[in-house]
Amino acid sequence: MDSRFINTNPYSSCDCKSDNEKSNGDDKRSSEYSFVSALSMSGGDGDNSYSTNSLLQKRVLSRTKRVLVENTKEMMTNLDFPRCIKVADLGCSSGQNIFLAMSEIGNTINALCEEWNKNPPEIDCCLNDLPSNDFNTTFKFITSFNKKLTRGGSCFVSGVPGSFYSRLFPRKSLHLVHSVYSIHFLSKVPEGLEKSKMSVYITSSSPQSEYKAYLNQFQKDFTTFLRMRSEEMVSNGRMVLTLIGRKTLDDPLYRDCCHFWTLLSESLHDLVLEGIVSATKVSSFKMPFYDPSKEEVTDLIRKEGSFKINNLETHGFDLGHSVEDFSLQSHGVKAGQKEASCIRAVTERMLVAHFGDDINIDTLFNKYALRVSQHASCRTKTSVSLVVSLIRK
Amino acid sequence: MDSRFINTNPYSSCDCKSDNEKSNGDDKRSSEYSFVSALSMSGGDGDNSYSTNSLLQKRVLSRTKRVLVENTKEMMTNLDFPRCIKVADLGCSSGQNIFLAMSEIGNTINALCEEWNKNPPEIDCCLNDLPSNDFNTTFKFITSFNKKLTRGGSCFVSGVPGSFYSRLFPRKSLHLVHSVYSIHFLSKVPEGLEKSKMSVYITSSSPQSEYKAYLNQFQKDFTTFLRMRSEEMVSNGRMVLTLIGRKTLDDPLYRDCCHFWTLLSESLHDLVLEGIVSATKVSSFKMPFYDPSKEEVTDLIRKEGSFKINNLETHGFDLGHSVEDFSLQSHGVKAGQKEASCIRAVTERMLVAHFGDDINIDTLFNKYALRVSQHASCRTKTSVSLVVSLIRK
Repeated sequence: MDSRFINTNPYSSCDCKSDNEKSNGDDKRSSEYSFVSALSMSGGDGDNSYSTNSLLQKRVLSRTKRVLVENTKEMMTNLDFPRCIKVADLGCSSGQNIFLAMSEIGNTINALCEEWNKNPPEIDCCLNDLPSNDFNTTFKFITSFNKKLTRGGSCFVSGVPGSFYSRLFPRKSLHLVHSVYSIHFLSKVPEGLEKSKMSVYITSSSPQSEYKAYLNQFQKDFTTFLRMRSEEMVSNGRMVLTLIGRKTLDDPLYRDCCHFWTLLSESLHDLVLEGIVSATKVSSFKMPFYDPSKEEVTDLIRKEGSFKINNLETHGFDLGHSVEDFSLQSHGVKAGQKEASCIRAVTERMLVAHFGDDINIDTLFNKYALRVSQHASCRTKTSVSLVVSLIRK
Repeated sequence: MDSRFINTNPYSSCDCKSDNEKSNGDDKRSSEYSFVSALSMSGGDGDNSYSTNSLLQKRVLSRTKRVLVENTKEMMTNLDFPRCIKVADLGCSSGQNIFLAMSEIGNTINALCEEWNKNPPEIDCCLNDLPSNDFNTTFKFITSFNKKLTRGGSCFVSGVPGSFYSRLFPRKSLHLVHSVYSIHFLSKVPEGLEKSKMSVYITSSSPQSEYKAYLNQFQKDFTTFLRMRSEEMVSNGRMVLTLIGRKTLDDPLYRDCCHFWTLLSESLHDLVLEGIVSATKVSSFKMPFYDPSKEEVTDLIRKEGSFKINNLETHGFDLGHSVEDFSLQSHGVKAGQKEASCIRAVTERMLVAHFGDDINIDTLFNKYALRVSQHASCRTKTSVSLVVSLIRK
């Protein structure tokens, strides 16, 4: 969540005619959580847009770069330098930083070809997100993307609107798939959640059934994701996925006290206490999200069977501020505002879809920022970044 | 211009690294006509948007449908029913009607496969326009597009931002290319035009040098267009192009008195007479457009050499109102408003870029509508629609 919470509503799929989609038949749009269809980053490039608040993507890429570069090189050599490489960034959202990974991939390929004295391939860069994503803003940055590329083959950019829980590309067409902070978003809010609880996500006090409901939905969604990609990718193609996960602990319900969703729940609770919004309204707002453990991810990849795990790393996770930032109180306040802006860009559309004019978004995120700064001294975090690289068998 | 005047500024190309683009080196952005970079249809879906004013595309497609269907069928059988078909709509603009041609193509392919007892292919639908185009509005209509498709293979949609005077797709990847009312737009305003003349385009009183300047630019641009597509298309791939042309007459300068650009020039002239805008400002506004004769188009295709002409038809051209519409005066007024809305959606961004707040767009197009209705009795039109189908050798 350093960066790009992404939208995964499968009902916006482009591919409504495919057999694959039929297997998602049980994922009927739940009118109960209709706000999920608004799961999309704030568009444009204003103060509260995702584009403005996603500079943190740079930090994520600096951590995952090594894995991405390694996999790109191995893909190229194992496939004996194809003449055209098709790359997909899934759940790309909007803004100029979505080209960071594509630049890295393009420049790695060009450097490798020079090193091996091979003709550089043409590169087909496909940027995917839901149809409600702000592609217009993204396309404005194509010129600067091209400037960042070293000299090589032609590079083509396209936007592919649709859910990555459905087919997005023709069979056996993709060589490399990349996705950052997207696939922790579920296709829908799980069924059977506790109705009375005023919490947008699992907390340490949630019943065991809640964990099972979320895990079950993640299992379905992630398996679908792998199956769709297995159809689209060439043999020996690579996939590098970065998602928010949690540390492996005995209690699968345990989340630290300053978990971002816990703080959002508490900020909404404040509004209930102030009589601004009803408890019922707040308790029916749930995040379509799951932060799996490393073992849960590994297990699902093995069961699905199309991919070999090349590598799985666990990195620290924060919202753009390091632990050191909290040493001074002023830094705590700043970090609070940063995290609030980030969570706002990710959730604003859903909040508005659910609460309408009942709540003032500025007020809510001022409360959120305050809560972050109140947790300045917390050191134990349950959230991690999982970086997994896969090889299509 | 029934429908989709399209933007063709090659400097917005995605493919700035390719060798092809280098050949466009003489097309340096002219600061003299900097408004050309704003050549893009009005976005969104408001009253004056292109999306709202492009229902006329339906009429165009009803005329060109037969040619499109024939070429789609012949492409499929000649290529022995490929497993995946990649189709491009070049200069698609925004709005739901841009899916009309794609639906026609998809349904033709599915019906043909059923007839021949073949498995329907996957179809990769690529919608191209300049990066400044409103792709967001277009992507909203994907669901209804899918509903229009008959049962067949999966159909994938992508947006490809870039100028069609540069490379947009990997080599030998396209099977079918379609473009309606786009390639009459030039990559820039020709050099060496008469500066003192208050006319946005060639008129019967233009000097011969003006015709030569426009023709020369069209020759360069159309040849580049053919060369780029020849690299992207598979052998025996098909291309169906519809563009505004002119009847073959002895005098290449002759345009009828109610030619749409003549009426725009006259409407701007009205504003000069009213002291609203200066004559100098108006005389520096020129359209990056050329309406070739059938012979000019044929000649360039033969000279470029990559394509065989399958068929070239000439159809009547109007802006969504038939000659019969003029029989009643009230119809004349309505037709005037229709044509004004259409020309406004196409030119508004450029007019604003050039004139800024100097002119009121509503006022200008009220004058335009009035002028159309004043020409209600005119019967001789020089403009035609040229429909040409090509086979990649």
